[in-house]
Amino acid sequence: MKELSHGSRLDAFVDRYAERTHGMTTSEIRALFAVASRPEVVSLAGGMPNLTALPINEIAKVFADVIQEQGQVALQYGSGQGLPELREQITSIMALEGIAAHPDDVIVTTGSQQALDLISRIFLDPGDVVLAEAPSYVGALGTFRQYQAQIVHIAMDNDGLIPESVRSAISTVRASGRKIKFLYTIPNFHNPAGVTLSLVRRREIIEIAREHDILIIEDNPYGLLGFDQEPYRAMRADDQDNVIYLGSFSKTFAPGLRVGWATAPHAVREKLVMASESTILCPSNFAQLAISRYFATQPWIDQIKNFRELYRERRDAMLEALDHHFPASATWTRPRGGFYIWATLPEGIDTRAMLPRAITARVAYVPGTAFYADGFGSRSMRLSYCYPTPERIQEGIHRLAGVIDEEMELRQTFGPSGRGGING
Amino acid sequence: MKELSHGSRLDAFVDRYAERTHGMTTSEIRALFAVASRPEVVSLAGGMPNLTALPINEIAKVFADVIQEQGQVALQYGSGQGLPELREQITSIMALEGIAAHPDDVIVTTGSQQALDLISRIFLDPGDVVLAEAPSYVGALGTFRQYQAQIVHIAMDNDGLIPESVRSAISTVRASGRKIKFLYTIPNFHNPAGVTLSLVRRREIIEIAREHDILIIEDNPYGLLGFDQEPYRAMRADDQDNVIYLGSFSKTFAPGLRVGWATAPHAVREKLVMASESTILCPSNFAQLAISRYFATQPWIDQIKNFRELYRERRDAMLEALDHHFPASATWTRPRGGFYIWATLPEGIDTRAMLPRAITARVAYVPGTAFYADGFGSRSMRLSYCYPTPERIQEGIHRLAGVIDEEMELRQTFGPSGRGGING
Repeated sequence: MKELSHGSRLDAFVDRYAERTHGMTTSEIRALFAVASRPEVVSLAGGMPNLTALPINEIAKVFADVIQEQGQVALQYGSGQGLPELREQITSIMALEGIAAHPDDVIVTTGSQQALDLISRIFLDPGDVVLAEAPSYVGALGTFRQYQAQIVHIAMDNDGLIPESVRSAISTVRASGRKIKFLYTIPNFHNPAGVTLSLVRRREIIEIAREHDILIIEDNPYGLLGFDQEPYRAMRADDQDNVIYLGSFSKTFAPGLRVGWATAPHAVREKLVMASESTILCPSNFAQLAISRYFATQPWIDQIKNFRELYRERRDAMLEALDHHFPASATWTRPRGGFYIWATLPEGIDTRAMLPRAITARVAYVPGTAFYADGFGSRSMRLSYCYPTPERIQEGIHRLAGVIDEEMELRQTFGPSGRGGING
Repeated sequence: MKELSHGSRLDAFVDRYAERTHGMTTSEIRALFAVASRPEVVSLAGGMPNLTALPINEIAKVFADVIQEQGQVALQYGSGQGLPELREQITSIMALEGIAAHPDDVIVTTGSQQALDLISRIFLDPGDVVLAEAPSYVGALGTFRQYQAQIVHIAMDNDGLIPESVRSAISTVRASGRKIKFLYTIPNFHNPAGVTLSLVRRREIIEIAREHDILIIEDNPYGLLGFDQEPYRAMRADDQDNVIYLGSFSKTFAPGLRVGWATAPHAVREKLVMASESTILCPSNFAQLAISRYFATQPWIDQIKNFRELYRERRDAMLEALDHHFPASATWTRPRGGFYIWATLPEGIDTRAMLPRAITARVAYVPGTAFYADGFGSRSMRLSYCYPTPERIQEGIHRLAGVIDEEMELRQTFGPSGRGGING
């Protein structure tokens, strides 16, 4: 086998990988998205924040000032937990959501994705169960899977996680003898579902989690991007002993610096720091000082208001287009913030099978199955309104509605199983 | 237990952590190093590069230019593998060590520590064996341990790893029924040993590894920081199918941006990218573009020459001080590059027990046991000459020699076991 591999693309190491790699495969969706990145395709697939409103000149100056005034620190190794001055500022940002935290409770991470990885690392043994919303964030599901966890999805409605479903999931899992390590939830402007957990349910779920000794991971990248009102009160605000809160600068400033954070109970935070040091030694001092100086010297609250306006306008454009073009038998969520709408099509339509045709029609989305660990979601899709212009969004939804109409016609003519022949 | 934990520092989650966390403890050395960071202490402990020679004004301009000219890319999410333009430049840098690589073979990582983590993630199941030098890099050992690997150390001499010891370690481990996943080696200017693997031995070890189907991880952060000559030929240059090469910008430019890389056989590289996406989504676009522009527009080869001069002067100062002050019964390595000297003291001295006294005498080092997974190294210490001025280095070695002399006197008076009473 070794000989075969020389100069070829066969994998000489196939028998030597760790068990956890068995679920790691490149998906065919990846290849489609390479096509979808062409400019003629309206991509409603990505989750890239829209950075056109950022003050580029001011940021360039902030970055240069960090080097001029703090270069020897900015360019050096730092602490595994992150710089105290940034952690202090992070506590002020979290205070907007009712959280009273000490800078010691905070660990700075390389985006909140790294926080998900570290939490998985310290809590998950193979076979442990993670409770997550149905659907849930694809990047979190991938991380939990790499730690060989089992994901049990819990039903949501327009007010987010359904407390009764949380209770019954806990009973079912425990009755089967499996260990639940935590409940992973995105309470605000859910990715991909676009719904928000009501305040009443937050309290109820906090109670259920306490009662059953289940840690809550509150992932909140979009919390300050609500369209209608002040930020919702965080779950962490009401239970600092049993909630790990994840925040990010990727949507309130920019993802290109890769800075997020976790706020955790003391003993957990200590373990997260040790795990992080073993993963990356320390987060970037430069990135931390640049963000710290941006938040200290620039009108960031106004900038977030600009972001909110920009996203609200795009959400409105998408909802209007959906109302106008989508079939009456489809349903979709009406987000009050964030980046995403979750649409569900009539019975019999498979959004994954339909994707190549949509891309041919120059529009892309993410098929619903990506957001489930268990194959569900085949009638659904995530539609992102964060990045394109309102006009492009409307054009994209128009094109997509055309593809769906054709799909429904085909289904009427040949029946659901008839699609097999057409898709090869 | 839950009730007790509220508001206290007890750990409510103690029964819920993953098995891999059991080896994660804060060491008492950490607390000592907090003391050692006081300005009156000469720290020969840290591995921080000396950044005083960096052109701060030029770097500030490079960073500002990246934002002004490429801000929308620099501040956005990027690809999991890293930016093609930087990967192209990385291949040119590796060419200095004889490596012919394609940019596709390279994955950009958050420092080469992340590369170590990703390699561990895709290869190590609990109980798997990693072969490593005796002593080895403390950060790598920590990562391997988090993946519950067993580390088997292999003897070195002044020419690095001893091929016969590699052979016998392989036989012994295999005879015991355990799986060896890879050999981890730092061929150039070893951390902590300060030795360099001879070119003859490189070829021999490449052959042994091939013969026994053992992957080589060649960790090379210091390769361009040799004092005497052109860079040594990398192991990867002679076996691109069985060597993963790790590089870093932390010592040739600056660690504060956290950018390193791995160059790997195709199938391995694909898995590394998937593992990295699950850990951090993508490396920082800004950090990558900033380094790319620095290497494209600044005289970086000259800058590395400045670094080499700076470190050579410090190595000379340390060797001179060791020759002058250290006891005749001590031995130490004479590095031809890099940051570190490895010193071994007379039988009976425990460098870990001696550390608090050294810090009281205002000098710090890292005890040898930190660089072994198996408790060895108690007579040895790592002495770093990278960061302090030559004068401070000489003063530090002078102070340290005084502490060692006292220790030897105590030992003569009370015998080795007498130290127990003195150290508590």
